[in-house]
Amino acid sequence: MGTRVMAHQRGTAFVFDLDGTLIDSVYQHVLAWKAALDSEGTELSVWRIHRKIGMSGGLFANMLLRETGQVLDPDRIERLQRFHADAYRRSMGSVRPLPGAVALLSALADAGIPFAVATSGWRETASASLEIVPFDWSRVPIVTRDGVRHAKPDPDLFLAAAERLRAEARDVAVVGDSVWDMLAATRARFLGIGLLSGGYGREELETAGAYRVFEDPADMLAHLDEVGGRR
Amino acid sequence: MGTRVMAHQRGTAFVFDLDGTLIDSVYQHVLAWKAALDSEGTELSVWRIHRKIGMSGGLFANMLLRETGQVLDPDRIERLQRFHADAYRRSMGSVRPLPGAVALLSALADAGIPFAVATSGWRETASASLEIVPFDWSRVPIVTRDGVRHAKPDPDLFLAAAERLRAEARDVAVVGDSVWDMLAATRARFLGIGLLSGGYGREELETAGAYRVFEDPADMLAHLDEVGGRR
Repeated sequence: MGTRVMAHQRGTAFVFDLDGTLIDSVYQHVLAWKAALDSEGTELSVWRIHRKIGMSGGLFANMLLRETGQVLDPDRIERLQRFHADAYRRSMGSVRPLPGAVALLSALADAGIPFAVATSGWRETASASLEIVPFDWSRVPIVTRDGVRHAKPDPDLFLAAAERLRAEARDVAVVGDSVWDMLAATRARFLGIGLLSGGYGREELETAGAYRVFEDPADMLAHLDEVGGRR
Repeated sequence: MGTRVMAHQRGTAFVFDLDGTLIDSVYQHVLAWKAALDSEGTELSVWRIHRKIGMSGGLFANMLLRETGQVLDPDRIERLQRFHADAYRRSMGSVRPLPGAVALLSALADAGIPFAVATSGWRETASASLEIVPFDWSRVPIVTRDGVRHAKPDPDLFLAAAERLRAEARDVAVVGDSVWDMLAATRARFLGIGLLSGGYGREELETAGAYRVFEDPADMLAHLDEVGGRR
């Protein structure tokens, strides 16, 4: 018998953002940044903070500079970040996993579908956040701000996660709630799947490159077959 | 000389929403509702609360019923509303006027352009909120939840405000940040002007009927001539 040329078997590998994607923490982060900015006498409307959440601290500082016209020296940026971290930690008691987060991750694990987590947060905060989700993270690659040169919307975090999964670009889908997730996914040549659970509008995510948008992890799980989650 | 038939002189009258439109209070309201729901053991994602803010308390309770599958008896709704009011009051110290709010109202007043405020909030909370804005409110009609049968997205609040202004439907434009403002404006046959300062997406407001969307009061003031604010 002759051999047949088979199409290379392809399966999707998922890279998850953390805040607003797996845990319901975006609004607490937003008001923690607001408190931090207030403490430095920097007034910025809360919706503008919300729209920048999830990008790297450096770009966030540049945005502040641009939108408030103020000079942010390194000391001040350091103070801001510390104040934010403290304020967020105080409100962390109210942060819950998003509906369906555990069920979605469990379904992927049970089906042998590879996935990782990639967050703009630093390792310390990310570890505390992961503990909110009752899931065995021991075998899941976790990429944090510490592990890359540039955070979102640069693609480094997602590229590092894909490398840990040994996945090729054509097989990777990023799941995130913010415009920065979708832009970083696009720059990595990955697909972007948007979730509304971070409080952004559907069209904001679509315009930024999401090829599919779900409400939250539960909604994504209910439609997993639509985005390559073959079980 | 014969008389000429003149087109009836028309000028726009503006009806402003308060939270998210004149003051930067939406995210504090959202997390106050979150705390209230937590206190009753009712879990609801924060973005879902954000999307319902600004509608009447009764419809908000119905939404809770529908989305959480719980029974909300009148006592529980009463407790929820009291908890929210208390939690919001505690965070009110961080609420500021939105950029350009005072300048926009002053420009309208100086130009003799009529305007009113119509809010889903009760008089007591609304009074405290108006005090945040350094403006002489004594000659501005203020319509609150107490003054009407149904709050947004029913048109009653905006209709009452227009009546106080003696404005005809064809001359009224509602300025608001939420989908409920735009729907209520449409039902009153008023125009809707959307502001992004409540944290909703531009397309959400456009889809709900906004004929023009600005970032915040400052942005609206800069483009006032586009929406009938002839000075």
